[in-house]
Amino acid sequence: MSVVAAKRPLAVSMCGGLLGNARATSQREIVRSARNFSGGEVNSQKDDREKVVVLGSGWAGYTFARRLNPKKYNAVIVSPRSYFVFTPLLASTSVGTLEFRTALEPIRNKRTHADFIQGWADSVDFFNKRISIEEAVDDPRLGLAPTGRRHVELSTGEHVTRRKGKTFNLDYDKLIITVGCYSQTFSIPGVREHALFLKDVGDARRIRKRILACFENAALPTTSDAMKKHFLNFAVVGGGPTGIEFAAELHDFITEDLAKVYKNEVGFAKITVYDVAPTVLPMFDEELGKYAMKQFAREGIEIKTSHHIKSLRKGLPDSENSQFDPKDEQYCMTLDVQEEGQIGAGMVVWSTGLMENPFVKNGLGSSQLIKTTDARLQNISEDQAVDSDWIARRDKKTGSLITDSHLRLVMEPKEQGDKGITATLTDVFALGDCAIIKDTAYPATAQVASQKADWLAKELNKGINGQGFRFNNLGVMAYLGNWNAIVQLETGKVSGRTAWFLWRGAYLTKSVSWRNKILIPMYWFINWAFGRDVSRF
Amino acid sequence: MSVVAAKRPLAVSMCGGLLGNARATSQREIVRSARNFSGGEVNSQKDDREKVVVLGSGWAGYTFARRLNPKKYNAVIVSPRSYFVFTPLLASTSVGTLEFRTALEPIRNKRTHADFIQGWADSVDFFNKRISIEEAVDDPRLGLAPTGRRHVELSTGEHVTRRKGKTFNLDYDKLIITVGCYSQTFSIPGVREHALFLKDVGDARRIRKRILACFENAALPTTSDAMKKHFLNFAVVGGGPTGIEFAAELHDFITEDLAKVYKNEVGFAKITVYDVAPTVLPMFDEELGKYAMKQFAREGIEIKTSHHIKSLRKGLPDSENSQFDPKDEQYCMTLDVQEEGQIGAGMVVWSTGLMENPFVKNGLGSSQLIKTTDARLQNISEDQAVDSDWIARRDKKTGSLITDSHLRLVMEPKEQGDKGITATLTDVFALGDCAIIKDTAYPATAQVASQKADWLAKELNKGINGQGFRFNNLGVMAYLGNWNAIVQLETGKVSGRTAWFLWRGAYLTKSVSWRNKILIPMYWFINWAFGRDVSRF
Repeated sequence: MSVVAAKRPLAVSMCGGLLGNARATSQREIVRSARNFSGGEVNSQKDDREKVVVLGSGWAGYTFARRLNPKKYNAVIVSPRSYFVFTPLLASTSVGTLEFRTALEPIRNKRTHADFIQGWADSVDFFNKRISIEEAVDDPRLGLAPTGRRHVELSTGEHVTRRKGKTFNLDYDKLIITVGCYSQTFSIPGVREHALFLKDVGDARRIRKRILACFENAALPTTSDAMKKHFLNFAVVGGGPTGIEFAAELHDFITEDLAKVYKNEVGFAKITVYDVAPTVLPMFDEELGKYAMKQFAREGIEIKTSHHIKSLRKGLPDSENSQFDPKDEQYCMTLDVQEEGQIGAGMVVWSTGLMENPFVKNGLGSSQLIKTTDARLQNISEDQAVDSDWIARRDKKTGSLITDSHLRLVMEPKEQGDKGITATLTDVFALGDCAIIKDTAYPATAQVASQKADWLAKELNKGINGQGFRFNNLGVMAYLGNWNAIVQLETGKVSGRTAWFLWRGAYLTKSVSWRNKILIPMYWFINWAFGRDVSRF
Repeated sequence: MSVVAAKRPLAVSMCGGLLGNARATSQREIVRSARNFSGGEVNSQKDDREKVVVLGSGWAGYTFARRLNPKKYNAVIVSPRSYFVFTPLLASTSVGTLEFRTALEPIRNKRTHADFIQGWADSVDFFNKRISIEEAVDDPRLGLAPTGRRHVELSTGEHVTRRKGKTFNLDYDKLIITVGCYSQTFSIPGVREHALFLKDVGDARRIRKRILACFENAALPTTSDAMKKHFLNFAVVGGGPTGIEFAAELHDFITEDLAKVYKNEVGFAKITVYDVAPTVLPMFDEELGKYAMKQFAREGIEIKTSHHIKSLRKGLPDSENSQFDPKDEQYCMTLDVQEEGQIGAGMVVWSTGLMENPFVKNGLGSSQLIKTTDARLQNISEDQAVDSDWIARRDKKTGSLITDSHLRLVMEPKEQGDKGITATLTDVFALGDCAIIKDTAYPATAQVASQKADWLAKELNKGINGQGFRFNNLGVMAYLGNWNAIVQLETGKVSGRTAWFLWRGAYLTKSVSWRNKILIPMYWFINWAFGRDVSRF
């Protein structure tokens, strides 16, 4: 089971041995490929447990790792993030209704029973059961939604290509792929560079800083009314639950708190939600959708459906360019909307769904492939044994990995085109936003991801049996601002204040740790009693 | 009282009028100097109150502004920071004993009764009673301790000079200078670039991220034991209360929390406090000093007194350079100590006291000066009227502003050399770390600053009378780690667990808002019960 090194095969030690975990480690070894190395010791403690490597620490990966029986499996989470994000509360943290850390759970925790390596999975060698990992401890985009090539630095405005981090190999007995998706920008010019996303805690932090900076800039004595209007124009692109809940939280923040401390500026503030579709919140039924629209109208949040964004850039709209100080250019951005022309804005929050993860596209199958004769390849759909290399099958439209109902990877022959020949790879599983079960249309939500994770952990804990995964739809909820929400269950629907209570209750119940179960209601109370904090740092 | 503009004298509006405050504003006007401007309106609401401009939002400025009677004075705080930092709790926030925001109070607050402009004071024209202000809303070093030229960007490793922000003028009736000091680095090479400071909340955040990154780097399977030793070597330079309390909090964080989740790395961790002086904590008496040393010895914190730092740089010590991967260079730094040679370290926290604020040195008196005949100049110490321009007198050694016992600025003739001729400027006050009262030696502490602020606000509220400021020494305290502290009062001294209770009690009592008075003990409890959070973002 030991692994071959490329140049200087000085075996260092086991993952399990080096990571914060005193449990014995298996005989698998990590080897630094093609790089000099000094020191290090070979750790060859016995570990009878199977080594389960989990790629990703989101709803699927984190939930799975926590549920897996540590007596039976030695789990290692590999993720660029050292924490799990409780995404439904992210919009609340982005305006200070909750403190950022209340939406986080650290992966390293006595109760998680999993080792952790902070890194990006680079590629998988299905044949040798080995993953190549790039270290990510010092990733400059730590905590931000991934939107594209991760070695291209956007923060400075120019695209600077970073050097790749160190890479090393990690062996697995079972591999769980839960790498999720990137944020979709449809390659609209300037969006990756200038829009803010809302997928990770770093995004929430940037949004909170940006909102406060816009108000503070507007409050400077040198700021004209025309510039105030730009600085305090907040655009949200994407009318799904993330975009809508963020708009609602922003509305609350402005009317409940910022209005009191920026009395002369608040009149310039405006929130607009853009979407290409004819309606927002398409997952809700018509009645709740209408209720939401009425609620937004009351709050002054403008919803612009069937609108198309052409570009986003820094600087003022062309028509006003000559009127202003060149320095205003730095703090204003221009959103070009097909139906409206150029709009000056202080902040654009982007939430238009998911984009295929490059690891799923490029990283899977870049190394030695599975042969037809491999015992791990089962349920080959053609009687004639196909003499071929097999690769992971992906959905033609979304690029998602396809699994069977046991969440095992569905493979297809590499060179056979789309003849529909498939097989199952029995030691690799995929779940979360990066995977779909063939012939199903479960949505890419936290609910599906965590149910799959729960199911798979139980399945592995007791040994796989006949019954496949089935999604149990628990309904959908969305916060609408001003203490109103909509909740749509299989059994009925609720809107208004009652729905808001359900919304808060559900997320409080689902929040993971006792720490957060205490802190979350504490902050709800504190911020209700004293207002949200407006310190910006 | 209206102000002359340099080129296009389009008067915009009053500060008070534009800022988040509905109170009427005085007839003073803000003028954009030498810059085109579109829009804007002249706000000429009457305000009978005197306009008090406070430069700075630290212990002196914030305390003063809160105490000032808003019925009598129209206070405007000008500061690059939009919050007040409760500095004694900063070390606790830097390791997660407390959440960052519990050490902050936003300046914009209904209860502060002061307007706010986020900016740096550039210069003061004592004659026209006018300050030039540079906007600071988008200052890239927001939240970080100032250490030198503020338009030089250090974060990228290279020194890039930023463009200066927009400037504008602000008039005052009374000026309160509480701009504080910069952090002292003694121009030791590399310190400004690579050391972390602990003076503002951004510093605390960088430290917390850095500690966790060091452990996470050490935990990577590719990290050798020799590199782990470097990454987990934490050096604190400066044995004053800040450095000592930080070392103590770091010790607690490592032994109470990180030891549980980085079991295999924690053995490599080491904390060393360096100081050039022969003892640390010089403000405590010998017995408490000895107690502190014994406590540190027990905790494994090494105290190296009479040690001199020669430089700090990125990369490994010279002797080891060839043995490692070039990429290790990025994550390790080398501290060159005269008595020890080159030491590899993962983090260097720098706290060696205060350096003169460049505004005090350059910004005061760069414009039109006060003439001898000016009625505001009083108590001229020579009988013969000196026909001269007067400038602010500064302490020869520290560069501090000198005030009389009423905290009014002491002036001296510009061209007269050091003949000891002085006068008092009756409408400008200076307090906090940037000022000393002549012939006194009060320490540059939060206690002195806030007592002066209290005294001055009362004085102005009731009209200045004969009695000058007197410092009431309430004692000194320092946290030593492992739930032990030392407290030295005028009436006696305490050490150990009792002193720790006093330490926590005192800071809880002194914390400003009810919000923080609730959150602080909450976090003390939460982190005692569940451990500090180790999520890094």
